[in-house]
Amino acid sequence: MDALKRKVMEDGVVIDERILKVDGFLNHQIDAGLMYEIGEVFHSQFQDQGITKILTIEASGIAPAIMVAHRFNVPCLFAKKAKPSTLNQGYYQTDVHSFTKNKTNSVIVSNEFLSDQDTVLIIDDFLANGEAALGLHRLAQQAGAKTAGVGILVEKSFQPGRARLEEAGLVVSSLCQVASLKGNKVTLLGDDQ
Amino acid sequence: MDALKRKVMEDGVVIDERILKVDGFLNHQIDAGLMYEIGEVFHSQFQDQGITKILTIEASGIAPAIMVAHRFNVPCLFAKKAKPSTLNQGYYQTDVHSFTKNKTNSVIVSNEFLSDQDTVLIIDDFLANGEAALGLHRLAQQAGAKTAGVGILVEKSFQPGRARLEEAGLVVSSLCQVASLKGNKVTLLGDDQ
Repeated sequence: MDALKRKVMEDGVVIDERILKVDGFLNHQIDAGLMYEIGEVFHSQFQDQGITKILTIEASGIAPAIMVAHRFNVPCLFAKKAKPSTLNQGYYQTDVHSFTKNKTNSVIVSNEFLSDQDTVLIIDDFLANGEAALGLHRLAQQAGAKTAGVGILVEKSFQPGRARLEEAGLVVSSLCQVASLKGNKVTLLGDDQ
Repeated sequence: MDALKRKVMEDGVVIDERILKVDGFLNHQIDAGLMYEIGEVFHSQFQDQGITKILTIEASGIAPAIMVAHRFNVPCLFAKKAKPSTLNQGYYQTDVHSFTKNKTNSVIVSNEFLSDQDTVLIIDDFLANGEAALGLHRLAQQAGAKTAGVGILVEKSFQPGRARLEEAGLVVSSLCQVASLKGNKVTLLGDDQ
């Protein structure tokens, strides 16, 4: 997706060979118009899949996911990183490790909002090691729901996330694929060919 | 706003006399169409105020705020509850106490994204004691930005939030005002008249 690729090239800040900071349009300040366009793109890709729910994880996944949900005219469901005091009934739970933050979070979805009648599209901001997307897929599986695919904004293609998701049988669509962050610059997949 | 009031009455779960759970359309599963309509309403109320940025706080504020930002065609900026490892430059910081969670969070906005050229509209899901909105207003003040107003989805009018915000000179617009949660039921302001 050209608009997103342009933003990544113009506004992305390379922190080191593994970390790309996109606080200017995604992870702190958010470009709402760009999120809207992203909703259009994922809708065009997955509109025939019978999607009933968009599934994401707080906090950075919410902005793109709500726009995708709006375009599909279905609810957006975000997994929580801590069990709220008000969640006393049943829930699905799995562990997700963040390599960036070096921390394992138990993520939770209430069983009120996900069932074997659902077909979910997983949306997340980044794909690196695939931990968050695989965790969301496990939550869907616990509910007996089908995962139609995984929609990612920025894929770090030099990390194993895509391979792990594909091994799990998931269809992955990434709007911007980063081949490398070496030499303090962003190289997109295809750019060096 | 009738659509939101209806949702609160139909889907809101009274936990106790102070806590209303709205996980069905706002705080866990999110009604994307309703968030879109909320963007329209706040835009119609604040469109003449020269808003340059929508300011909110993670995580539950993001969904309505991004829709408001989209309608205003301005960026959405969300304050973070923890300093990210990638935020090494200057930032504004203030403390926000959550009475529900009985926890004080230091909330942060990078000084890259807020300046004395900005006029912000603060958006949040709930108004109870006003801590989050006042904290966001302090962040705006630290940046020299103007706060045009505070847009709230659900106000608990039996708690002091609105009074505290108005004392601070802020214009408050709440789309649904809850007068009481007593007797295990939601009474909206005006309903008992």
